[in-house]
Amino acid sequence: MASSSSFTLSQALLTRGTSHHGFTQSSEHHRLALSTLSLPSFSGLKSTSSSTLRTPTSRRRLSTSQASLPIRAAAVETLETSTDAALVEKSVNTIRFLAVDAVEKANSGHPGLPMGCAPMGHILYDEVMRYNPKNPYWFNRDRFVLSAGHGCMLQYALLHLAGYDSVQEDDLKNFRQWGSKTPGHPENFETPGIEVTTGPLGQGMANAVGLALAEKHLAARYNKPDNEIVDHYTYVILGDGCQMEGIANEASSLAGHLGLGKLIAFYDDNHISIDGDTEIAFTENVDKRFEGLGWHVIWVKNGNTGYDDIRAAIKEAKAVTDKPTLIRVTTTIGFGSPNKANSYSVHGSALGAKEVDATRKNLGWPYEPFHVPEDVKKHWSRHVAEGATLEAEWNAKFAEYEKKYPEEAAEFKSISSGQLPAGWEKALPTYTPESPAEATRNLSQTCLNALAKTLPGLLGGSADLASSNMTLLKMFGDFQKDTPEERNVRFGVREHGMGAICNGIALHSPGLIPYCATFFVFTDYMRAAIRISALCEAGVIYVMTHDSIGLGEDGPTHQPIEHLASFRAMPNILMLRPADGNETAGAYKVAVANRKRPSILALSRQKLPHLAGTSIDGVEKGAYIISDNSSGNKPDVILIGTGSELEIAAKAAEELRKGGKAVRVVSFVSWELFDEQSDAYKESVLPAAVSARVSIEAGSTFGWEKIVGSKGKAIGIDRFGASAPAGKIYKEFGITAEAVITAAKEVC
Amino acid sequence: MASSSSFTLSQALLTRGTSHHGFTQSSEHHRLALSTLSLPSFSGLKSTSSSTLRTPTSRRRLSTSQASLPIRAAAVETLETSTDAALVEKSVNTIRFLAVDAVEKANSGHPGLPMGCAPMGHILYDEVMRYNPKNPYWFNRDRFVLSAGHGCMLQYALLHLAGYDSVQEDDLKNFRQWGSKTPGHPENFETPGIEVTTGPLGQGMANAVGLALAEKHLAARYNKPDNEIVDHYTYVILGDGCQMEGIANEASSLAGHLGLGKLIAFYDDNHISIDGDTEIAFTENVDKRFEGLGWHVIWVKNGNTGYDDIRAAIKEAKAVTDKPTLIRVTTTIGFGSPNKANSYSVHGSALGAKEVDATRKNLGWPYEPFHVPEDVKKHWSRHVAEGATLEAEWNAKFAEYEKKYPEEAAEFKSISSGQLPAGWEKALPTYTPESPAEATRNLSQTCLNALAKTLPGLLGGSADLASSNMTLLKMFGDFQKDTPEERNVRFGVREHGMGAICNGIALHSPGLIPYCATFFVFTDYMRAAIRISALCEAGVIYVMTHDSIGLGEDGPTHQPIEHLASFRAMPNILMLRPADGNETAGAYKVAVANRKRPSILALSRQKLPHLAGTSIDGVEKGAYIISDNSSGNKPDVILIGTGSELEIAAKAAEELRKGGKAVRVVSFVSWELFDEQSDAYKESVLPAAVSARVSIEAGSTFGWEKIVGSKGKAIGIDRFGASAPAGKIYKEFGITAEAVITAAKEVC
Repeated sequence: MASSSSFTLSQALLTRGTSHHGFTQSSEHHRLALSTLSLPSFSGLKSTSSSTLRTPTSRRRLSTSQASLPIRAAAVETLETSTDAALVEKSVNTIRFLAVDAVEKANSGHPGLPMGCAPMGHILYDEVMRYNPKNPYWFNRDRFVLSAGHGCMLQYALLHLAGYDSVQEDDLKNFRQWGSKTPGHPENFETPGIEVTTGPLGQGMANAVGLALAEKHLAARYNKPDNEIVDHYTYVILGDGCQMEGIANEASSLAGHLGLGKLIAFYDDNHISIDGDTEIAFTENVDKRFEGLGWHVIWVKNGNTGYDDIRAAIKEAKAVTDKPTLIRVTTTIGFGSPNKANSYSVHGSALGAKEVDATRKNLGWPYEPFHVPEDVKKHWSRHVAEGATLEAEWNAKFAEYEKKYPEEAAEFKSISSGQLPAGWEKALPTYTPESPAEATRNLSQTCLNALAKTLPGLLGGSADLASSNMTLLKMFGDFQKDTPEERNVRFGVREHGMGAICNGIALHSPGLIPYCATFFVFTDYMRAAIRISALCEAGVIYVMTHDSIGLGEDGPTHQPIEHLASFRAMPNILMLRPADGNETAGAYKVAVANRKRPSILALSRQKLPHLAGTSIDGVEKGAYIISDNSSGNKPDVILIGTGSELEIAAKAAEELRKGGKAVRVVSFVSWELFDEQSDAYKESVLPAAVSARVSIEAGSTFGWEKIVGSKGKAIGIDRFGASAPAGKIYKEFGITAEAVITAAKEVC
Repeated sequence: MASSSSFTLSQALLTRGTSHHGFTQSSEHHRLALSTLSLPSFSGLKSTSSSTLRTPTSRRRLSTSQASLPIRAAAVETLETSTDAALVEKSVNTIRFLAVDAVEKANSGHPGLPMGCAPMGHILYDEVMRYNPKNPYWFNRDRFVLSAGHGCMLQYALLHLAGYDSVQEDDLKNFRQWGSKTPGHPENFETPGIEVTTGPLGQGMANAVGLALAEKHLAARYNKPDNEIVDHYTYVILGDGCQMEGIANEASSLAGHLGLGKLIAFYDDNHISIDGDTEIAFTENVDKRFEGLGWHVIWVKNGNTGYDDIRAAIKEAKAVTDKPTLIRVTTTIGFGSPNKANSYSVHGSALGAKEVDATRKNLGWPYEPFHVPEDVKKHWSRHVAEGATLEAEWNAKFAEYEKKYPEEAAEFKSISSGQLPAGWEKALPTYTPESPAEATRNLSQTCLNALAKTLPGLLGGSADLASSNMTLLKMFGDFQKDTPEERNVRFGVREHGMGAICNGIALHSPGLIPYCATFFVFTDYMRAAIRISALCEAGVIYVMTHDSIGLGEDGPTHQPIEHLASFRAMPNILMLRPADGNETAGAYKVAVANRKRPSILALSRQKLPHLAGTSIDGVEKGAYIISDNSSGNKPDVILIGTGSELEIAAKAAEELRKGGKAVRVVSFVSWELFDEQSDAYKESVLPAAVSARVSIEAGSTFGWEKIVGSKGKAIGIDRFGASAPAGKIYKEFGITAEAVITAAKEVC
């Protein structure tokens, strides 16, 4: 193993104060590194307008008025690397030109960020991060997230150099083309080595918080004093755009609260966004904001060539174990392009042949497009062997762990492999019509608590509505800074951050099953994160209560109307609206089983009876018959209900049957699951010959024509709700058995 | 006029340095009040953990190490009020018990906030704000927003005391009941005196930024050195929940950037949210964050009884004219309730009869429910006369203005009344098939620029995508801190804040027409704000470009699929997808005309031809025939397209006609508008007898069954998109004329 990897290997040892080759760690350093509580949250130069060059000397001088001198003096020591400076520079330029060339060939993409962030990218992937290129899914790898996802060529170039099979030279040449492994933004489901799906700004920052939260949780649950099997960092690069997004502030606030010390964020502070200089819209003091959020903040003034400053900042960040760190790295967007650097024109378009040439000249780059110089190739080639060693060492460590702690190891393996414990679904409760009426939000809590006992990876919580959403796991305490082994996460009133954090948790380990909760109407706050759950195949469970006008007095701002329809239209997501106890259990069975597809459970605030005929099996089919007095698959009318309105459909059927009608009642709990059934099954539930159909659902009728047909009737709500007791609103809005009976008589 | 209103009237005079009865303002004070640039952003006690009582003396002592002593010493002087302290206390308790009693009677609601915020509420509505209770729409009123909308009984009690006709005693008794003027959260469309619709947390804070932005804009455009007709403050109360929401950070960051000095926010810092103490999820340093955001920050340590501190803080806030101010007011939630104060149990439920009694005893309140003591009633009664005087004085001032500045006055009246200039729609361009092909995003810019010349209230911008969304008004500069008269707003990458800020702008004055822009897929980031536009009847124009897979290489994170369907399902909003130049003009005609219904324009990134048969009139009908070779309203097949796919439908029709078919092509630009047409018109476009129908739209087919019927075919995309050149994706996804032709042959 080349000695240049010394720093890479030193990270785990550092906090334990082990002396290590590459740099000599004195006991003084050790003591200081551990006494992190006394570190100030901001240790960089305070003024962004200062033009003083940041050198160890000037930093030391500037800091004399502050309490934290010794630590900071220690922290600015350069991490040793045996790679000579010229080779580093060459590697950095390789990254830059792979990005430039790929964007140029595609004539589409974002060269500016990779050109500016190549130095930090090089240091992370070549000197700092621990990973195994031949197994991108090795559990204990460091996680990297490019929150500024438009700069994806940075990451593709790094994966390519590091030896990941997913990004070969041909993949770089097919950047942004149909079927390539190198799409226009990083997509974990396309490219092994990409951890999460980014592009929509701010999401990656929150994903990274989720990844770091997962690490902290698993470390607390499974590490033993003699064997720390969970031990990795989460790195994220975010840009000005991410910083402006509210979701990033939400997630960062929670990260500060939880003291996620192994989360290290690089803020690519290049002062340029699409509309030009950030001066036109973004003049806040980001350092101060992050200090306020409880982060350790470091400023690297010269991110273009200040390699040692970047290294020093990472070392300092690692020494701060009780706070996440923001390293603000001031860079030049499009660094190296003589005519376009530091302007918005280099952000999102190809440089153009002329400027590519000028850039080659400017940076002294004589090579053909896509060429990786031999010495750079050779230098990076060690990562394959090193990665294999890292994983092998970890595997050996885990084998020891398994011998000594077999129970914990079994649980851990379920989480790291995604193999759910056999028979987990037997934990789900069942009900009879005699069981006492309950709101489905309460029935949901029963399911969650039953599942938490059997599913080691289930954890989650609510956006400050735990007692309304009924999401507390009663046998566990709160996941807090000092109790990260617990499984109740208190997300605060941060719905958007919550969803994206859960995406990060889900994508950390296939057996982690995050759930999160708020009122159904507030899915609007987190819709962008939910959509990414669906796209990136994160099996998050969204526990969404107060799912209709049935919530009553809070009124139209709190009453969902169009939300069921809006999610039924979204690809790769399951929208489930259970009607009672058995259906809630069924919804959880489906949600847990679908590890690559998120589920949204719409649950009632109000009490609902347990209906005859409902079942877990039925839910798995999406729609099914709960009662029928017809024969030969020829009912006079089919009444279709979902959730809290299934009861109304059942009541109306009873009345109609008294009048001699042959009435079938169908529970339509999930449109997506029903769509996946065989034609024969569909015909057995909704025979084509029976056009007399009435649906009832306390939400928009949009889309119901597909189910009830042009001769049927859809009873629903196509206006905003109202503030009044729930029963009154149901009546005034005509969501009643009488309305169903009238409609049924009209259609049959 | 009672002398107790002296402070109320003094606000406008203060910044002009006029000596005024009530307090003597020395010339020294005047000079200092104007030299606000030297004020520190944080002037309160720095440590939240300090238990030192905040008195003028101790503040002065603590601040000696800081540069800003003189200002701060001046600022802590108590505002004079002639109302005796006992009466203030009685008024405050009246507010508390009106809230307690209304929630108790409804057995639903949130008593905790009104009980804690009654002191600041009293001071605002009784001592500080300028309004006319008998004309809640008087232009120059101070605006008040309760961002923590669940505490709406605070505002209802204040409106009741102040003499607003909308909230009578009976309305208080009907709190949260069907048809009442006092719904469960503040709704501007239900209750005159309520400015905006709040409840979903954080929205109100952003609305307030919009209101303050509108004031600053109009003041800069219309005030004259001798006649300042625009001159009011915007006050907002927000709670811990609002503070956690990302939208509030986005809006606050922009407010700081723009230096909205007349925005004064009260942060009800009560340390309690629904899940309990904020310690479990929210431990950031809010003061520091707001300093970072460029706000002036003041801490009022005792918001329960520290009336003079609240008054002093407001005075200080007004003296800072170049920054918005956050007054953090530490209160006790449920103040006065002996057993429930300072706990989450008082947040969102009625106290219960026993605790109501205990609270009455504790606060010495001998009155019946809903009783307003005579002296309190008498004290507040002056606001009716005072309000009338304020408005009369302003009207006189405006009459002078009109005489001297008739042109500006005419423009101003259009904005303040909402009466659009006659013939404004003539500014819209029209096109012929010979006009050069253009992306509808570019055609949109042509419309915006044409309209901006004739509509004085049109202003807006993009979330850092102005050059992609094509939203710049070329004849105007940027709305910046020092150029607020300009009409291009740079929202930054803050979609959610942008939407809610536009709601505030729209609701500031009926003739303000805000537009805002981002990629269509990122409506997901701002959906909660868009929904409130629809609910609160704010006619915001959402300019949403890159509306399909047609955006190409950016890939599935950027390609909307379900978005058209999701908005078609939303009440009171117009989803418009124009196909070319005439339709884009038509979409703008509709959007501008609909002042109480927001519009979303889905616009293409790619170039589109101008089609024969399209028209502005057609758009106004929602769907219309652009070409037809059938007779007797009996086409063989109807092809239906929207936006960029209308071209494909037209091409397919040509081919089919060559094969002898009678083909009608329908542009379906807005489902909502078509729904509003007469049955006869609908039949003339989509005759019931013609079931051979094919639709094509590069989005989810969800909902299209309603249009094409069970025998028709909907061509669309029911999966996520892909990263590749647009043409390739269209082909691979089957969004082609060939697919339409094949489908047409199948159905007819």
